[in-house]
Amino acid sequence: MGLLGIATPEEHGGLGGDFLMSSIVIDELSYSNCSGPGWAIHSDIIMPYILHHGTPEQIQRFLPAMSAGKCIGAIAMTEPGAGSDLQGIRTNAKKDGDDYILNGSKVFITNGYMSDVVIVVALTNPTAKTAAHGISLFLVEEGMKGFIKGKKLKKMGLKAQDTAELFFEDVRLPKSALLGQENRGFYYLMNELPQERLLIGIMAMASCEYMFEETRKYVKERKAFGKTLSKLQVIQHQLAEMKTEISIGRAFIDQCLDIHNTRTLDSSTASMAKYWASELQNKVADRCVQLHGGWGYMQEYGICRAYTDARVQRIYGGSNEVLRGLIARQIIMD
Amino acid sequence: MGLLGIATPEEHGGLGGDFLMSSIVIDELSYSNCSGPGWAIHSDIIMPYILHHGTPEQIQRFLPAMSAGKCIGAIAMTEPGAGSDLQGIRTNAKKDGDDYILNGSKVFITNGYMSDVVIVVALTNPTAKTAAHGISLFLVEEGMKGFIKGKKLKKMGLKAQDTAELFFEDVRLPKSALLGQENRGFYYLMNELPQERLLIGIMAMASCEYMFEETRKYVKERKAFGKTLSKLQVIQHQLAEMKTEISIGRAFIDQCLDIHNTRTLDSSTASMAKYWASELQNKVADRCVQLHGGWGYMQEYGICRAYTDARVQRIYGGSNEVLRGLIARQIIMD
Amino acid sequence: MGLLGIATPEEHGGLGGDFLMSSIVIDELSYSNCSGPGWAIHSDIIMPYILHHGTPEQIQRFLPAMSAGKCIGAIAMTEPGAGSDLQGIRTNAKKDGDDYILNGSKVFITNGYMSDVVIVVALTNPTAKTAAHGISLFLVEEGMKGFIKGKKLKKMGLKAQDTAELFFEDVRLPKSALLGQENRGFYYLMNELPQERLLIGIMAMASCEYMFEETRKYVKERKAFGKTLSKLQVIQHQLAEMKTEISIGRAFIDQCLDIHNTRTLDSSTASMAKYWASELQNKVADRCVQLHGGWGYMQEYGICRAYTDARVQRIYGGSNEVLRGLIARQIIMD
Amino acid sequence: MGLLGIATPEEHGGLGGDFLMSSIVIDELSYSNCSGPGWAIHSDIIMPYILHHGTPEQIQRFLPAMSAGKCIGAIAMTEPGAGSDLQGIRTNAKKDGDDYILNGSKVFITNGYMSDVVIVVALTNPTAKTAAHGISLFLVEEGMKGFIKGKKLKKMGLKAQDTAELFFEDVRLPKSALLGQENRGFYYLMNELPQERLLIGIMAMASCEYMFEETRKYVKERKAFGKTLSKLQVIQHQLAEMKTEISIGRAFIDQCLDIHNTRTLDSSTASMAKYWASELQNKVADRCVQLHGGWGYMQEYGICRAYTDARVQRIYGGSNEVLRGLIARQIIMD
Repeated sequence: MGLLGIATPEEHGGLGGDFLMSSIVIDELSYSNCSGPGWAIHSDIIMPYILHHGTPEQIQRFLPAMSAGKCIGAIAMTEPGAGSDLQGIRTNAKKDGDDYILNGSKVFITNGYMSDVVIVVALTNPTAKTAAHGISLFLVEEGMKGFIKGKKLKKMGLKAQDTAELFFEDVRLPKSALLGQENRGFYYLMNELPQERLLIGIMAMASCEYMFEETRKYVKERKAFGKTLSKLQVIQHQLAEMKTEISIGRAFIDQCLDIHNTRTLDSSTASMAKYWASELQNKVADRCVQLHGGWGYMQEYGICRAYTDARVQRIYGGSNEVLRGLIARQIIMD
Repeated sequence: MGLLGIATPEEHGGLGGDFLMSSIVIDELSYSNCSGPGWAIHSDIIMPYILHHGTPEQIQRFLPAMSAGKCIGAIAMTEPGAGSDLQGIRTNAKKDGDDYILNGSKVFITNGYMSDVVIVVALTNPTAKTAAHGISLFLVEEGMKGFIKGKKLKKMGLKAQDTAELFFEDVRLPKSALLGQENRGFYYLMNELPQERLLIGIMAMASCEYMFEETRKYVKERKAFGKTLSKLQVIQHQLAEMKTEISIGRAFIDQCLDIHNTRTLDSSTASMAKYWASELQNKVADRCVQLHGGWGYMQEYGICRAYTDARVQRIYGGSNEVLRGLIARQIIMD
Repeated sequence: MGLLGIATPEEHGGLGGDFLMSSIVIDELSYSNCSGPGWAIHSDIIMPYILHHGTPEQIQRFLPAMSAGKCIGAIAMTEPGAGSDLQGIRTNAKKDGDDYILNGSKVFITNGYMSDVVIVVALTNPTAKTAAHGISLFLVEEGMKGFIKGKKLKKMGLKAQDTAELFFEDVRLPKSALLGQENRGFYYLMNELPQERLLIGIMAMASCEYMFEETRKYVKERKAFGKTLSKLQVIQHQLAEMKTEISIGRAFIDQCLDIHNTRTLDSSTASMAKYWASELQNKVADRCVQLHGGWGYMQEYGICRAYTDARVQRIYGGSNEVLRGLIARQIIMD
Repeated sequence: MGLLGIATPEEHGGLGGDFLMSSIVIDELSYSNCSGPGWAIHSDIIMPYILHHGTPEQIQRFLPAMSAGKCIGAIAMTEPGAGSDLQGIRTNAKKDGDDYILNGSKVFITNGYMSDVVIVVALTNPTAKTAAHGISLFLVEEGMKGFIKGKKLKKMGLKAQDTAELFFEDVRLPKSALLGQENRGFYYLMNELPQERLLIGIMAMASCEYMFEETRKYVKERKAFGKTLSKLQVIQHQLAEMKTEISIGRAFIDQCLDIHNTRTLDSSTASMAKYWASELQNKVADRCVQLHGGWGYMQEYGICRAYTDARVQRIYGGSNEVLRGLIARQIIMD
């Protein structure tokens, strides 16, 4: 399609661009209220893991197919019992000769149902003091024995994306399925997280801009009580408040993008971008639905879908509460 | 079923209770997160119109069947071009001998698709200075020629209720279809509105209580980051805030119910109940979804459905913005 | 003056009324934007302690003089190092024969500078497992050796009330200075707290009503941009929102008053009243200042003083954060 | 002092810098919680008017003295009856030969009491269709006959600045008192407004940063209930929220500064900066006072003064409501 793997080097089938170029695609997709399938996850989260930590064989095996859209990727971190808390992870891979035997289950996996390859986060050293020292990443492929995909979960929104549970029952993984070094998974995750969070922030801002424009058009056309809606002072002030917050958020996201393009975006700043922009997205969605009146509640209107799509943005990618805690830790240490 | 027509006298097939009893049913339905079919509209909005303004023949024709659940009622006020603004109404009924010829269309009609009888608000005196002097109510029945039901609208939530567009193309209505007196429709509507608004307030409060209890249970069981959620201070404070606002809202709704039972609830106070309780319902829904984490986004959880059901409560029954305007008018006059 | 000691029996110089009558005085004082001197503390917090827990001699010695306004009372709980946390209390009274030797210091004491008698909370059993088992109350009088009043603190608002630090350096207290039983102070405090919290709630609501009426008058008279302010839709909606929240809060406070008059108001409900009403008071104050424009910032306007007076209401009497914690404890236990 | 007139050319006694340099001084003053005397007004609002629109004689007469701090400037726009609405202005200057006779009154004039020279906005063409075509600016000097300074107004905060009413009773102004061309005053005002609004935004952000740092220090030292405050999760989340919003606001203000330094900052964007940053300032002030507990209410703490100083920032310089209206106008036109 040409829109996948933008930041992947050309020799691996990508476009050889950078994250800034990639972010423009995400931006435009969100701005056109297109929320699925899980593009950004595939292209800007999964592919970088393989590019940065994969062996030449892994890169060759997956990236060209992923760039071509023939192989769909997912990442499986969250577990039913532990949420996004890596310390509580139960899924484990035990050494058996040169192989690993993988057991456990994952939940809320975007692209999980359609995926051809899943990066699975698993314990490899259960006696490590903290998860930070005992986690590895594995490339688990569709069709491996014992790898079972659960039912697609019915979600409030994001209906064009699938979200599934995944089960691993004695899945035998060859050594070549290990991504990066054993027990280094935590560091790889930490390394990729700022980009993932910034991504969500970018999607949130672009969605805000889409919703605002939709609503601006609507209130300039629509009449009620003998007046065009946009002539009502209360509505004017709401437009002004939204536009202001969107402009301010945009300035911040653009600043983050500049920093990230030099690979120096810290976890705390990326968390701010994700948490604040997704809160704004929900606030704007709520107001825009209200300004659409009854039509805002009808799925044929984009604003209705944007509203339910928005809701998960505060939950996934590190819930906004987890991120506040993380930002706070930095503040108190400073 | 025995749960319809509670406030309808026994001689018309009802239970002969009062609105307080009726409100308990609504309360329990909302508390059990059951949002459809449009019970309250049928039983506590449509039936009172017929009881208060119908002829003995109309009462006899509709109320027993409606109490028995064999005849489903709806009310058609909102129009595509005018929203809930009665001054902008276009649907009209022209005298033709003893009959009326009805033309126009309505939108967002709860129960509209399943309805057997619809109270249609129409202009009967287009030259009246204000709509207040030229509106009448008609009982339009399924099967009348020219009465066409549009497609069911796909909604964000409230999926157990149908919402439809209705079209009237030269529908010939006999004189017996007129509900109450000609050109008095506006007053009948004004008269029934406080109960309709209070109803929405009651549903909102009961839903708040449901969502709070669901969430309390969830956070007392669920663990994250090695701790039961309910042990986290941030979550404790959120529970305390919700519980406080719910207690305060409940005190107000109960006060309104007492006043309404003596038929002295004014429009302004009923509007406060509707607007504030529905805002609270949305706030509580939003927090409770967040406290459920990823599961809050999955439709198998009641909280997910309660969230999308809640959203329309601020829009219909007089949007909360229209109600603020109405409350303000009273304040400035005082 | 006749307005002190309303709920104190007639034989002790009071009016023999109940808290409902007393609350009307507080209500009227707050409604007239009169915030000092510390009436309510004197009359509805200090006097009940003596009435409920005092010996006949203590009652005779203090209550008639307090009812007559000749003896001003204060209560000294908060300490520089411990805030309102009773577990962290350092002020202590050591037995010395039949006497006690009091040492320590207190801060933020309303009426502290003008007081003739202060109820001092002190440790009497420093080895008790929790403060609950080791705290006593003492009646410390102006003029006792070693009882030193610090400077009056300069506050943001409440300028008609004095707030002071108090120091106790080897103050020798006779046995007759002990109020109630030794080591039972914690229970006395817990017993009187609901009334204290409800009091603050009542003052908050009355202040809201005062500010709202002031502002309503102002915006109905004042013109800007060629229009009376009250004709602006944004201002109308703000009035409607404030009026709604005030009506709802009032319903709750009145419900609490009914319950408290039967002495069954629990700590959690009283905390809700205090916390929510004081939050509302601050919100209303903020909006009303804004609606007064530049004049809202000038001390000659009542709204300006009401704004700075309001700010402390969320801090004292159990900060609103402490109260949220307390309400939550009840929710989680239930 | 060397800190006045930074953006004034050296030949007029200034430092010859630009607004960026000037903004650093304002920033540092606000960050050190120093709110008076009206520095920024004098140096970055009054002086530019004279520099941009004055005759060589006016520049020579005032700027060197103003740079040296020997001549204090003020600007008098707001009137008792009209607020900041230029269309409602009553103060007028009638031609009398070559002179003008000035009559009227102004209110809320920062530096008004101490001022040596005041730029007075007055009607010179009362029959102009809109104020835009009939307003002129005059340099009115201390000591002119008929120029009377009213009492200093007692304000909620900003106590180091004076704010006064000014009265003009048949003040005879020579032609040389006219600043710029006759009837062009409106355009001069419009031209300088973006800088004035941005200034308030800068002060707001710097004050936020000051308050945040003060509070961070406080909660890291202070203990309550046996724990350092900064260990409490609720407080951690509040710190994280404040820090995030401050970072985002800072990104926007810095972006505005860059744009303004090329003189292309439009009125709408400057209004966003002023309104949003001053709202944030008030929100941060409120939270930081609360986090200081009782001490937050005591004037000896900087946070207490910062709180009352902050309140006026949403009122002056175009109230935040007026600015929302202005931003909205742009949105609807676009």
